[in-house]
Amino acid sequence: MYGSRSVPPSVKWSDMNPDIQAERQKATFDVEKLTHILNGGPEKTRRRREIESLVINDPDFKEEDPNFLSRSERYDQAVRKSAQMILKMREFGIADPEEIYFYKSMFRGNFHEAMGLHFVMFLPTLYGLCDPEQSKKWLPIAQSYQAIGTYAQTELGHGTHLRGLETTATFDPVTQEFILNSPTVSSIKWWPGGLGKTSNHAVVLAQLYTRGDCHGLHAFIVPLRDMDTHIPLPGIVVGDIGPKFGFNEVDNGFLKLDHVRIPRDNMLMKYAKVDPDGTYVKPPSAKLTYGTMVFIRSMIVGESARVLAKSSTIAIRYSAVRHQSEIRPGEPEPQILEYQTQQYKLFPVLAMAYAFTFVGQYMNDTYHRITADIHQGDFSQLPELHALSAGLKAFTTWAANSAIEVCRMSCGGHGYSRSSALPDIYVEFTPTCTYEGENTVMMLQTARYLMKSYRQARTGQRLHGMVSYLNESQLPSVQSQLVSARSTGLDIEDLSGLAELYKLRAATLVELAAKSIQKELQQRRSQEDAWNNSAIDLVRASHAHCHYVVVKLFTDKLGEIAAGPIHSVLTTLARLYALHGIMDNSGDFLLAELLSGSQVLQISSRLKELLSELRPNAVALVDAFDFHDQMLKSVLGRYDGNVYEHMFEWARRSPLNATEVHESFEKYLKPLRSKL
Amino acid sequence: MYGSRSVPPSVKWSDMNPDIQAERQKATFDVEKLTHILNGGPEKTRRRREIESLVINDPDFKEEDPNFLSRSERYDQAVRKSAQMILKMREFGIADPEEIYFYKSMFRGNFHEAMGLHFVMFLPTLYGLCDPEQSKKWLPIAQSYQAIGTYAQTELGHGTHLRGLETTATFDPVTQEFILNSPTVSSIKWWPGGLGKTSNHAVVLAQLYTRGDCHGLHAFIVPLRDMDTHIPLPGIVVGDIGPKFGFNEVDNGFLKLDHVRIPRDNMLMKYAKVDPDGTYVKPPSAKLTYGTMVFIRSMIVGESARVLAKSSTIAIRYSAVRHQSEIRPGEPEPQILEYQTQQYKLFPVLAMAYAFTFVGQYMNDTYHRITADIHQGDFSQLPELHALSAGLKAFTTWAANSAIEVCRMSCGGHGYSRSSALPDIYVEFTPTCTYEGENTVMMLQTARYLMKSYRQARTGQRLHGMVSYLNESQLPSVQSQLVSARSTGLDIEDLSGLAELYKLRAATLVELAAKSIQKELQQRRSQEDAWNNSAIDLVRASHAHCHYVVVKLFTDKLGEIAAGPIHSVLTTLARLYALHGIMDNSGDFLLAELLSGSQVLQISSRLKELLSELRPNAVALVDAFDFHDQMLKSVLGRYDGNVYEHMFEWARRSPLNATEVHESFEKYLKPLRSKL
Repeated sequence: MYGSRSVPPSVKWSDMNPDIQAERQKATFDVEKLTHILNGGPEKTRRRREIESLVINDPDFKEEDPNFLSRSERYDQAVRKSAQMILKMREFGIADPEEIYFYKSMFRGNFHEAMGLHFVMFLPTLYGLCDPEQSKKWLPIAQSYQAIGTYAQTELGHGTHLRGLETTATFDPVTQEFILNSPTVSSIKWWPGGLGKTSNHAVVLAQLYTRGDCHGLHAFIVPLRDMDTHIPLPGIVVGDIGPKFGFNEVDNGFLKLDHVRIPRDNMLMKYAKVDPDGTYVKPPSAKLTYGTMVFIRSMIVGESARVLAKSSTIAIRYSAVRHQSEIRPGEPEPQILEYQTQQYKLFPVLAMAYAFTFVGQYMNDTYHRITADIHQGDFSQLPELHALSAGLKAFTTWAANSAIEVCRMSCGGHGYSRSSALPDIYVEFTPTCTYEGENTVMMLQTARYLMKSYRQARTGQRLHGMVSYLNESQLPSVQSQLVSARSTGLDIEDLSGLAELYKLRAATLVELAAKSIQKELQQRRSQEDAWNNSAIDLVRASHAHCHYVVVKLFTDKLGEIAAGPIHSVLTTLARLYALHGIMDNSGDFLLAELLSGSQVLQISSRLKELLSELRPNAVALVDAFDFHDQMLKSVLGRYDGNVYEHMFEWARRSPLNATEVHESFEKYLKPLRSKL
Repeated sequence: MYGSRSVPPSVKWSDMNPDIQAERQKATFDVEKLTHILNGGPEKTRRRREIESLVINDPDFKEEDPNFLSRSERYDQAVRKSAQMILKMREFGIADPEEIYFYKSMFRGNFHEAMGLHFVMFLPTLYGLCDPEQSKKWLPIAQSYQAIGTYAQTELGHGTHLRGLETTATFDPVTQEFILNSPTVSSIKWWPGGLGKTSNHAVVLAQLYTRGDCHGLHAFIVPLRDMDTHIPLPGIVVGDIGPKFGFNEVDNGFLKLDHVRIPRDNMLMKYAKVDPDGTYVKPPSAKLTYGTMVFIRSMIVGESARVLAKSSTIAIRYSAVRHQSEIRPGEPEPQILEYQTQQYKLFPVLAMAYAFTFVGQYMNDTYHRITADIHQGDFSQLPELHALSAGLKAFTTWAANSAIEVCRMSCGGHGYSRSSALPDIYVEFTPTCTYEGENTVMMLQTARYLMKSYRQARTGQRLHGMVSYLNESQLPSVQSQLVSARSTGLDIEDLSGLAELYKLRAATLVELAAKSIQKELQQRRSQEDAWNNSAIDLVRASHAHCHYVVVKLFTDKLGEIAAGPIHSVLTTLARLYALHGIMDNSGDFLLAELLSGSQVLQISSRLKELLSELRPNAVALVDAFDFHDQMLKSVLGRYDGNVYEHMFEWARRSPLNATEVHESFEKYLKPLRSKL
């Protein structure tokens, strides 16, 4: 009944596949209202749709499915679209960051911008690190795309560990120049987006040498290509690093610098400086750079939610129209969404999509709150946010990464077709597990904070924020809590109680990791070896900590929503998320004696009931994410459910169908016969 | 010391990366001898290498990396290679199935044959289902590639459920023809390999109608294209289904039949027949077709082992030459293989590669043993083999699927480059989770056998084979066994004891699934609904059963190997496999009270020790898989460890580097400036 309200104007109710129509009629809640909750209010929904329609209805953005194009054609199309987008956003006056995000999300679909790094790294670096003189020189030419830039940090042989980078920038006081050089093969800059073909400038990170001393990593503006002809400048060897799993419209590049000379004032000098005589002036401590990392990692949490929402939309809609096999003999083939195993694959992903959406909102709000504090000189909450953003970035991207593939495989063979969009969603998303902080490294950063907090709590310091549970974690008190929890019986319907369980699990695993380190130290290992020899336990502890945070934030979010059908269905989702997580990690809960065996069996049964409870609302819950078909670009995930006709239509456009007879027939197959 | 013996002749010891050279010197066992064990004896190794060298040294097989080609060029190259391969194998007299497998594996690398289905489905179907007349007519033209064929079963709307297929074949006694028709969009044949562009014939599965009655699915030879011009015949709409996640050198196709008429004797009539007057003659029962499925699924178990071996080779060799970050401050960046977290990602994959290799050998041997029994009329062991092959196909492909991605991500950013080969290995392998029996369906087939066996045991029948543990599974007796196991203390070094634990876990989960069904039935649900409502438990039971089988077979295999360094290192691997599996599923073992909490903690510690024990042999253990560099096609997995030079060389061949300035600069970027 409610579902009908969210039918997009482009879809006629009567043209809809009857199965998916019936699903929408079963919904117990108002889809549109849930969309508003996800968007942050009706006005936000309205504005988002308005901006999206600017892209949808724009004939200049007509494009071929990149899957039908060669690498070079894909790149060509992406550059064309990026150039158009820049003009359009000026034309429409889209300048607010959130509105830019809406516009770009629609414009990009499941793919990436050719010039992404110009916007997210090159310009912000100039804003952040130019002194006033430099701003005057560089900003106008960068903002007008005379200079198109990227940010070149990682090298062929070096990733996250900044001290390991080999590129050098040696100051020559005679000519007042820096000499940028790649001394080895492993020092070749590698991976920066837009470096290969698009950019004519790069901010290059290099070890600064002056007067014979190394002063560590600094940023330099290096011209790469002639601004008129785009031909690489002398000493510059630059190119594309070749095809990747995804990101194939982006020219991630390499850069080999052969004693390239740049003027002294091409070093970004807002903080650190090199004087004309070669004197190095240290920067004041730069805690603020911390903030950018936190911001990007928080954004990635939101991206995890987004790909989960997309993938579950596709798989659940398809599962509602796909019929296969039989449950009861003689009856017609049921919708595959009727199978318990299919629900068990997809509904936890749906629950996770909602959970991570709320976590993303929380991270975003927290970031802005803490940024305001920082501007007032209060850095006190930054370490916790830093640790949380690192861990949640890893926790959510790993979970989303696996979940996309669960969704893809749940669509059977058709999930493997590029027309489903699921392969694209996967390959474009999976790098988030690696970039902006490799996930295992991220988990260990969070663990470092947890270990520090644990030690502080043990020495009587009072902890605040998400780690405050460690205050209570002196083992005897935890144990007595547990015993009382078990003796009074656990109410598995009570979300706060479940959050409490997750909290105690985290406390237990933090303690186990701390004890592993202690044990190693007692065996006279160094602090560093003790850490490395406990790394598995540390990652597990971080994982449990993040899991607790997610359950807690989902529970907290429910507190903000008025009682009613939406509250009710979200509560079911939250329970599913929490109980599914317990089943997936039941060893932890049993080991810590937080749950008895019979409680685990009870949870297992309850989980099956929750799948049935969610079943009537499954399609409505993905409809609420409100992805336009042109954003999903998935024949399986179409709003109208008319999958097969459009799959056939899509296939006929395949490049191999351009001719009835492929040239290979005359070239190889016909001659083969005569040779046999 | 031992490692040096297996250096391929093409690699000079002195040109080797010193890190990987040092790894090989640390090995405690003779790599070559282990290769022989994996291959089934020194003579097999010799012959495999001999056949591989026929491909390696053949200038006709020189090819461009498919990743650098457009879809059409990829397909073109694949057809060229397939045509050459057919000639070469005749020239070299390669006809033994195992030798064909060696040749093709080398020739294919990480990709597929354009004409694969002609060999694995079209020809075997003709051999199996032609009557003598038909054999005389069709075999010569199929063997000489006048007729190139495929096997068209699945449809756009229908997969594994044969009764759901919609294509019809209606007999017309007037003209003595069958009329083949696709009545709906969902009935369009979809997915068959080689159907789109390559084949001029197909075996089409269709619902047979004669005299107004439907007789179910039968096979028909349908000419698709003119044998001279290759132009599609009237009534045939055929083409490529479009780009996929992988398999992009294969023209998986669609086929829409518009009342296409074929002669009566194009129905394959070895078993079922239609007489000229339209009388339908039923086939005798055809248990033998069972055998083909079992064979293919057993082969897939071997494929799982193979991709695990490839992926772990790449990731472990790369982890031995990649240096990153720091463990101890001030020291040089360590090899990333020194990190416990990296070992914890990769060594279980290595152990799994060995485990599945031995399981694959067992399945192959068992298949041949049972086939011999069947030819003597003894079908008694077929049901167990059928159930086992279904479950193990699902168990091993799911595990391998995830493990490839663990390996890829363990290589950081470079794993995302197509030059690592890991993206290709993943996308080419992942369909095994779906084809030849979708994995969840497979697990439920195994569960059906387990439930049947359980019921038989409960009614006093004596079970044999891998399920014989259910004989003991009347709950009281299991429980008393457990108590005694725990009271006497578990020796976690004892592999037979660990296999026993896995057995008891399987017994417990089989019983839980059976009880779930019972409970549903008591609530007056139908047998079918009870089954569907217990499906999660059933899949878990099958999973535990397969896990037990793998641990048991690995343990059994060790019994065949003489004491010595190889036995010792394989024992370490088997322990790692078993203990890692317990930790990953600790909830099951704790829930069933097979292990106490302190035993789980003990296993967790022991697991960390096992990682350290394996560390010195890690590279030697992957060397023993003996993949030639030309088979791996991975710059990260190179035998000589010279990763960065070759990555740079590979990148320079990227199609985007064909010109210094991409045309998009003049087309879009330059004009953009003037518009701002």
